[in-house]
Amino acid sequence: MKLFNKVVIIGTGLIGGSLGLALKKNNLVSQVTGLSRHRKNVRLAKKAGAIDSACTSLDAVKDADLVILATPVEAIIEIAFKIAKKIKKDCIVIDVGSTKEAIVYKISKVIPNFLGCHPLSGSEKKGIINLQGGIFAGSICVVTPTIKTGRKVLNKVSLLWRRLGCKVVVLSPERHDQILAFTSHLPHAVAFSLIGCIPAKFLRLSSSGLKDSTRISASDANLWSEVFLSNRGNLLACLSVFQTKLAVLKLALERKNKKFLTSIILAAKKKREKLG
Amino acid sequence: MKLFNKVVIIGTGLIGGSLGLALKKNNLVSQVTGLSRHRKNVRLAKKAGAIDSACTSLDAVKDADLVILATPVEAIIEIAFKIAKKIKKDCIVIDVGSTKEAIVYKISKVIPNFLGCHPLSGSEKKGIINLQGGIFAGSICVVTPTIKTGRKVLNKVSLLWRRLGCKVVVLSPERHDQILAFTSHLPHAVAFSLIGCIPAKFLRLSSSGLKDSTRISASDANLWSEVFLSNRGNLLACLSVFQTKLAVLKLALERKNKKFLTSIILAAKKKREKLG
Repeated sequence: MKLFNKVVIIGTGLIGGSLGLALKKNNLVSQVTGLSRHRKNVRLAKKAGAIDSACTSLDAVKDADLVILATPVEAIIEIAFKIAKKIKKDCIVIDVGSTKEAIVYKISKVIPNFLGCHPLSGSEKKGIINLQGGIFAGSICVVTPTIKTGRKVLNKVSLLWRRLGCKVVVLSPERHDQILAFTSHLPHAVAFSLIGCIPAKFLRLSSSGLKDSTRISASDANLWSEVFLSNRGNLLACLSVFQTKLAVLKLALERKNKKFLTSIILAAKKKREKLG
Repeated sequence: MKLFNKVVIIGTGLIGGSLGLALKKNNLVSQVTGLSRHRKNVRLAKKAGAIDSACTSLDAVKDADLVILATPVEAIIEIAFKIAKKIKKDCIVIDVGSTKEAIVYKISKVIPNFLGCHPLSGSEKKGIINLQGGIFAGSICVVTPTIKTGRKVLNKVSLLWRRLGCKVVVLSPERHDQILAFTSHLPHAVAFSLIGCIPAKFLRLSSSGLKDSTRISASDANLWSEVFLSNRGNLLACLSVFQTKLAVLKLALERKNKKFLTSIILAAKKKREKLG
């Protein structure tokens, strides 16, 4: 059963392109139009079967039933304001950005049928070239309604994510940003700092451990500086907690306290093993 | 061509067991005897074909041509002192521990034919249950001779590693410890602290990025506290460099300096991409 007739995806990179592909493969929509600043991106998206038609003007949203904002954070807000007066009254608009509070409250003011979404299916591999329709299946999608979000909008968008194989988790935008600061934004900040401090000439002696623990540091610089800034307060708090944890481990090492050091590592090991 | 007749592996965990399996599969030795504190480990190693015979007494080293010390760091030194007077004069002894300076200089005093080795093929999955003969192929093995190490010992042991598919890198024990503090011990310290600071209830919203960047935090606690303590000075220095890098990123975020933040992330991305 098709859930939407015309869908417009703005930003046909890794997530936007994969979403188009997944929507079409699962037969959930009648028609997908793709928009991107980068002509090459929409051309590749069309070639990959992720979109039916490409467009360069925001006027394409006029007769859309669903608009998906899949650009970096700052552009999401900017574009939402531009399309607010162009869309139909009953058009649903969603985004797929990594932070929610700033996005959701700003956009909801101008687009009542807006629902913030965050599929936890990102990758350090940015762009259309890496698009895969299957990245959503089995992953979590957080949707972040406000008290003003209509029940119909929440249900229909949740159903869409479930049809793509996602487990839908409903959180307030604030709670989303607080949690993701720890589980996503902090690990990125740590990975950038870790790879950053290792002398380049030492890297030839790196094991799979270093490679794994810094894999996400190959993420897009502009996208992540915008994520960090749009969740600044929460991330700063997480960084402080992390700095304390690290200082405690350092102290145990300075004092040659093997018992304490072992207990720190054992607690980490146990927690990590639960993660699967 | 067989390189050694009788080989004794002390500690038949992940690395020791895998080494036995690889030596036998590549037909490099005539006979492998395994020793472990844990009876279950030697039994499993024998079942897996990693050793020909199991033994519980260190007297097994008496007629060995090669002894491989594959226990955690402290036990490596302790056992080396115990076997020093039992082994044949021309018996070669190697270890596979993660730090080298403390091990090499202490053991070389009592065993002249000792060569410190560090195959960069470890895993957070400890123990015989995860042993694989193929973990050495394509990986780097660092060997750490001193000025007193005999040329014959260095050549024969290097050949052994090369026959297992390793690329052999020769470094002084001091240089090894300085480099590995950055490329292996620091990433572990960071991963322990990262998973340690994330509230357990938030973990259900973790993405593949968090999983990857904390995978090594599931490593053995006793083994790693000994690694940290035996490379304490270098690791403390690395931790300070990392703390500074992190503080700089935090400052850029505090000051909302997007340009600076983007440049930090971009430098990290470029360095990580070189790592492959």
